[in-house]
Amino acid sequence: MKVRVFVSLKNGVLDPQGRAIHHAIEGLGIHGVEDVRAGKMIELEVDASVTDAQLEEMASKLLTNTVIENYRIERVQP
Amino acid sequence: MKVRVFVSLKNGVLDPQGRAIHHAIEGLGIHGVEDVRAGKMIELEVDASVTDAQLEEMASKLLTNTVIENYRIERVQP
Repeated sequence: MKVRVFVSLKNGVLDPQGRAIHHAIEGLGIHGVEDVRAGKMIELEVDASVTDAQLEEMASKLLTNTVIENYRIERVQP
Repeated sequence: MKVRVFVSLKNGVLDPQGRAIHHAIEGLGIHGVEDVRAGKMIELEVDASVTDAQLEEMASKLLTNTVIENYRIERVQP
C-alpha cells in the first residue's frame, strides 16, 4: 500500500524558498499568484503490518520538524 | 484558489534522501516499509486569471527538473 506524507511550514513561519519561487513566477510574466509555500512530500510503500500509529511516529519523529512544520498522512487506496 | 504541484523523482532515478529516510525508519524498529521516495510539494494561492497553461508553464519551467522529475498539478476546490 502506498502512503504519502505531506510536510508544510506552519502559518507565520518565513519561507524563503517559497518567496524565491514566487519571484521567479513573476519573472515569467504571470501575475495572478498571491502566495507560494514550499513543502515536502514523502511517498512510502508499506506492507499491511504497518499501523497508523507507526505512520504517525515516522511522520512526527523523522519527517517533520514539529516546531515549524505540520504534516498530513494520506493512505492511497490500491 | 489553492493549487498544489507535486514533484517526484522519475522511476529509476537514485534517491539518496529517500534511502536515508528508509534507513532511519528501520532504526525506529519499523520493518514493514518497502520503499521510500522523497519529493516536493509547492502550494500556490492563485486568482481566477491564472490559466491551466500558465500552471503547466510554472511547473515545467520552474518547479521541475524534467530530466529526472515528474510533476502533477492539483487544483483544490474551495
